[in-house]
Amino acid sequence: MYCLTEIEAAGSTFGNYFRVTTFGESHGGGVGCIVDGCPPRIPLSEADLQVDLDRRRPGQSRITTPRKETDTCRLYSGVSEGVTTGTPIHVFVPNTDQRGHKDSLMMSFCFQDYKEMSIAYRPSHADATYDMKYGVRAVQGGGRSSARETIGRVASGAIAKKILKHFSGTEVLAYVSQVHQVVLPDGSVYHDTVTLDQIESNIVRCPHPEYAEKMIAAIDAVRTRGDSIGGVVTCIVRNAPRGLGSPVFDKLEAELAKAVMSLPATKGFEFGSGFAGTFLTGSEHNDEFFTDEHGTIRTRTNRSGGIQGGISNGEIINMRVAFKPTATISKKQHTVTREKKEIELLARGRHDPCVVPRGISLDNGFPLLCCHLCKF
Amino acid sequence: MYCLTEIEAAGSTFGNYFRVTTFGESHGGGVGCIVDGCPPRIPLSEADLQVDLDRRRPGQSRITTPRKETDTCRLYSGVSEGVTTGTPIHVFVPNTDQRGHKDSLMMSFCFQDYKEMSIAYRPSHADATYDMKYGVRAVQGGGRSSARETIGRVASGAIAKKILKHFSGTEVLAYVSQVHQVVLPDGSVYHDTVTLDQIESNIVRCPHPEYAEKMIAAIDAVRTRGDSIGGVVTCIVRNAPRGLGSPVFDKLEAELAKAVMSLPATKGFEFGSGFAGTFLTGSEHNDEFFTDEHGTIRTRTNRSGGIQGGISNGEIINMRVAFKPTATISKKQHTVTREKKEIELLARGRHDPCVVPRGISLDNGFPLLCCHLCKF
Amino acid sequence: MYCLTEIEAAGSTFGNYFRVTTFGESHGGGVGCIVDGCPPRIPLSEADLQVDLDRRRPGQSRITTPRKETDTCRLYSGVSEGVTTGTPIHVFVPNTDQRGHKDSLMMSFCFQDYKEMSIAYRPSHADATYDMKYGVRAVQGGGRSSARETIGRVASGAIAKKILKHFSGTEVLAYVSQVHQVVLPDGSVYHDTVTLDQIESNIVRCPHPEYAEKMIAAIDAVRTRGDSIGGVVTCIVRNAPRGLGSPVFDKLEAELAKAVMSLPATKGFEFGSGFAGTFLTGSEHNDEFFTDEHGTIRTRTNRSGGIQGGISNGEIINMRVAFKPTATISKKQHTVTREKKEIELLARGRHDPCVVPRGISLDNGFPLLCCHLCKF
Amino acid sequence: MYCLTEIEAAGSTFGNYFRVTTFGESHGGGVGCIVDGCPPRIPLSEADLQVDLDRRRPGQSRITTPRKETDTCRLYSGVSEGVTTGTPIHVFVPNTDQRGHKDSLMMSFCFQDYKEMSIAYRPSHADATYDMKYGVRAVQGGGRSSARETIGRVASGAIAKKILKHFSGTEVLAYVSQVHQVVLPDGSVYHDTVTLDQIESNIVRCPHPEYAEKMIAAIDAVRTRGDSIGGVVTCIVRNAPRGLGSPVFDKLEAELAKAVMSLPATKGFEFGSGFAGTFLTGSEHNDEFFTDEHGTIRTRTNRSGGIQGGISNGEIINMRVAFKPTATISKKQHTVTREKKEIELLARGRHDPCVVPRGISLDNGFPLLCCHLCKF
Repeated sequence: MYCLTEIEAAGSTFGNYFRVTTFGESHGGGVGCIVDGCPPRIPLSEADLQVDLDRRRPGQSRITTPRKETDTCRLYSGVSEGVTTGTPIHVFVPNTDQRGHKDSLMMSFCFQDYKEMSIAYRPSHADATYDMKYGVRAVQGGGRSSARETIGRVASGAIAKKILKHFSGTEVLAYVSQVHQVVLPDGSVYHDTVTLDQIESNIVRCPHPEYAEKMIAAIDAVRTRGDSIGGVVTCIVRNAPRGLGSPVFDKLEAELAKAVMSLPATKGFEFGSGFAGTFLTGSEHNDEFFTDEHGTIRTRTNRSGGIQGGISNGEIINMRVAFKPTATISKKQHTVTREKKEIELLARGRHDPCVVPRGISLDNGFPLLCCHLCKF
Repeated sequence: MYCLTEIEAAGSTFGNYFRVTTFGESHGGGVGCIVDGCPPRIPLSEADLQVDLDRRRPGQSRITTPRKETDTCRLYSGVSEGVTTGTPIHVFVPNTDQRGHKDSLMMSFCFQDYKEMSIAYRPSHADATYDMKYGVRAVQGGGRSSARETIGRVASGAIAKKILKHFSGTEVLAYVSQVHQVVLPDGSVYHDTVTLDQIESNIVRCPHPEYAEKMIAAIDAVRTRGDSIGGVVTCIVRNAPRGLGSPVFDKLEAELAKAVMSLPATKGFEFGSGFAGTFLTGSEHNDEFFTDEHGTIRTRTNRSGGIQGGISNGEIINMRVAFKPTATISKKQHTVTREKKEIELLARGRHDPCVVPRGISLDNGFPLLCCHLCKF
Repeated sequence: MYCLTEIEAAGSTFGNYFRVTTFGESHGGGVGCIVDGCPPRIPLSEADLQVDLDRRRPGQSRITTPRKETDTCRLYSGVSEGVTTGTPIHVFVPNTDQRGHKDSLMMSFCFQDYKEMSIAYRPSHADATYDMKYGVRAVQGGGRSSARETIGRVASGAIAKKILKHFSGTEVLAYVSQVHQVVLPDGSVYHDTVTLDQIESNIVRCPHPEYAEKMIAAIDAVRTRGDSIGGVVTCIVRNAPRGLGSPVFDKLEAELAKAVMSLPATKGFEFGSGFAGTFLTGSEHNDEFFTDEHGTIRTRTNRSGGIQGGISNGEIINMRVAFKPTATISKKQHTVTREKKEIELLARGRHDPCVVPRGISLDNGFPLLCCHLCKF
Repeated sequence: MYCLTEIEAAGSTFGNYFRVTTFGESHGGGVGCIVDGCPPRIPLSEADLQVDLDRRRPGQSRITTPRKETDTCRLYSGVSEGVTTGTPIHVFVPNTDQRGHKDSLMMSFCFQDYKEMSIAYRPSHADATYDMKYGVRAVQGGGRSSARETIGRVASGAIAKKILKHFSGTEVLAYVSQVHQVVLPDGSVYHDTVTLDQIESNIVRCPHPEYAEKMIAAIDAVRTRGDSIGGVVTCIVRNAPRGLGSPVFDKLEAELAKAVMSLPATKGFEFGSGFAGTFLTGSEHNDEFFTDEHGTIRTRTNRSGGIQGGISNGEIINMRVAFKPTATISKKQHTVTREKKEIELLARGRHDPCVVPRGISLDNGFPLLCCHLCKF
């Protein structure tokens, strides 16, 4: 009667009161999300979502995948006469016809016909574990592990941003702070003043022009070799509401960590002083309190990263997220098929040499989290 | 009607089907937990829990806090004739009388009487944010932010370990891999073979005797100065079930990150290649598959850290967790009172100079998570 | 900081592990559902869903609303090559162009132009409470309170039925046992043997032909007068798995009651002996146990309705559900507008004179509940 | 890999944001609850809870069970200096020593020694289904199916009442409206004006003195025969907040139905016009709106029972709950043992001849539900 059985995945939902469910994979009719619990009377249009979807989509520049996807969204419910109605919002992005074809181009194997290709496990992809768990495998585009799933996240995050903007002055910005060996030095970006325009001023989305150049060069170098690289995204939250987060299991940093580590290709998360803080003593690390000129209790330093005891304290929340190098590369690799036969695999076609510049769309995540934790 | 209101904290529960709720603070009658959803007919006694509670409790050695707490647990429901009955298990650890007294010794302030003390915010503690959020503050021991809250986690984790042991051969081990500047080099502990005995063989709980000595010396040095330090705990899971975790929001690494980052004093989480993996290229980073002599599909390397696409693949799961230096130090610090008055604060009394050796009790966390994710 | 604020509705989701989210209203692009947590490798096609959608849809006979809706469903994700993949299943039923027009015909008010119509509250509809809660109101078809919302429930229930059929011999049947004053006497339908064909053999869906005639006559009578009537649906579950339900808050009858009472127009729920059982003594009411010829422990009577202590015992589960008379009638009624002005309202157009024959599609609910409670 | 497996019970928790977990059974150390998510700064003492616990406990009068239980509660956490702190509130009611002894007296079987007694299934109790599900059975007092479990519900409901009182003028009253054949006629209790004192003025808790006498006589009659009877409790909510409940799955009546049907011995639930409403036509049943002298939109009649479209409309919420006759009777009954052997069973000792007068403590349920649905 009792045996070890993994409870089947219903893991496509995030949040309780602002509840997002994503659906879809690259080989079906489309992808998207349902947002349940959005407050009524928030102005919302398809154009609001499209801005963020465009920032996420592939094919934006030479350093991202050259695949072209238009990713045009439709709002099928929950909005009437330009405002939300409080009912579930259904966002749908159809898969375009060309896409299936291009995807099948993406993966072709030397010495293998299509049938065998469909059952080889790509190294460091989800192919093998999905097959273990579900006993099914769709080759085209990786099913739910496809980065295409994040379309639903970006769209719902865009809705959350509209809500945050409506109710508070909270601003969330993410930028690239490391690409492979190119590391932006601490303090070279001012978190008090950095702007979205500065971040968007170059294709790698690093607000420091000099380092941006170096990062782009690093991606170009690896792209021409058919290899890939990873990096780090820094994300900051200015004017976060004080008091977000709960004392025990649902600390704000715990919620942030879960949200971030649910993104494809992430390997690490830190906030405030992070791993580097372990090299300080308590007297070096503690953030002393003072009362500022407006009578607000503040901290002089911010090694706490805007969160103390699991609860936001009003200082800037900052976090860093490690993205591994893209697993798809244009180099021959050893692997096995579903039938456990060892083979050599060569993925031709197009891929992101570095996913980090697109990873900045995780700045949509904090608004999502904020709506999940707050009542508006 | 709609304004930004943080939904009040009900954050003391973890898990859905093996559901743990912790309760209690240091100034009340006691602390503990309710575990709902434990399978019936698992042998369980108070002694099973006491082993782990003893490993967690303060006063074990000169490098932890000298406070003595016996932390004797009682099982008040859910167990009958030595086995679980499938009903909620209630674990209660009374607060001893002496404790309240000792706690009040812990914190006394220069130039301040007791009344003022109760309203000063200790730097980098939860005092200020709790007060912002709840408008109440109990000085003794920090309320729910007290490390004493983790007693309920350790007790429920001990129950989870019994279940895991009953149904699978999964083994979870945590050890100290860094204390301040003393960093255990990569590869100096063999994750295939390291044992609990090796870890428990010294008071700092580092399985490498030579580095253990250095770590203990580092803690001794800072302890005598009244300062504190932090460090890193490495946690590994051997023989984890394959197929744990879900593809999208509930990836195994996301669940692990949330669980870990909900522990007091944690600042960062990484698994597999972690932040260091960002310095590799895709061709250096990918884990190639092969079929081993038992016909099992394995990976030659394990930069994936035992998780691919959010799902465990049967390799060793490994993760690293950063703990900041203890916020309580015996040095004078600037801070403000609840009334925004700037004061100097000096905490006398006893504290942990380094929380990391006790932080290894996070090895109880994975069994908890496993029971949350699995059906037994 | 603390005031009474209703937490905003995210109530469009049912279940945890087989999790259904419905979306859509009659005035938007379409309606449907996402089913997350469906096991993989279950054969599933659009035709499987269409059978049940056709049974639910309006316009089937003279005793239901004469509105014609085709309600053709599309499966946009979660199914590949005829079987489920374990990923979210997206079912979409577009609103047809004609529908919007017809809906606006449905409701027109004497002495009022369209603009005012949009803000009068129809008696015993959801108009007033929706407006209080959300501050928005869409006139066409009642928004989420529209019976059209149940399309998503029926579609997901049809998926659940496929799963139940795959894993157990459970059979769920609902039939009409009362229409207004026409009450089917107890015992006139044999729950051990009644079949779906018997139920579907007439347009009122009562398996007793003689009473079916009387019920149809009762509906015809009220239909021609522009009035409406209600009734009772009886639902039985044969071969339900033993052991469904939990001892305390999540008793099986509690879950059933919640599921049933979430359907539009329901006013009461009872199972087993129900309200009538209050007229018996304990010695008359208790179900004695015996061991049957197969060595199975059974009860001689079934006043428990197949559930004891909140847990199914293997006997037939039976329940009765009261549906009020349809609120939309073709008679002049007094009401108020949004601006609190008293007016007379006359709804022209088409409506269901009795919703009970379509209410039998609640037999899709138990499979849903079963999938919510079970792991397959 | 996929088989029908009931997901194990973690059903001891109710609510999300005001989250109650009950624990304990009659044979262990005690019973009680944890309330997580209670707002801070609400005055609360053990005496506040004791009032309601006394109303619930057995041995209050000759018509309830003569067992004496003091049920003295302790608050072990979450309260400091007489007010709540926002942290989990732990309420504990120890089982008294005498109780175990008395319980074992309660059940003894003719022709059977104690050992066999422990494995016979009492008709219409939870014994058989618990044993099927968990494979364990504790004879004393019925484990979690014991009415003693409701102590945790009553205690948490008492906390919820304090909150409701603090934030709104909502008043919840339950009274006995039927005992066996004695049926209080409709309209003989005025829901606008009935008071708690009127209800508590007699031991059967019916506010109509004449019918109260008849009900008491009916219970006396059956009590002396060793039999038992059931009845109906009516519960009303005055000044409920408008806007409670959500449109689809979480309609207010659905939440109420689940809460009510999770109580032991309940067989049916109805609100507003209930089952009787099925005998009306739409034109007879609809509640017309009008604007009252304060400018508030009201309904002239209240067949909707205070809820329209799943959302409270400000009218009095009324519901009726059927309780079956107590299953424990002092008469010989046929049943089987765990080993499927047929035996005769005679329970001696004490039991409630009618549980309905104690069932009125379900008036604590609505405050619980209200706190679950609202943000304070």
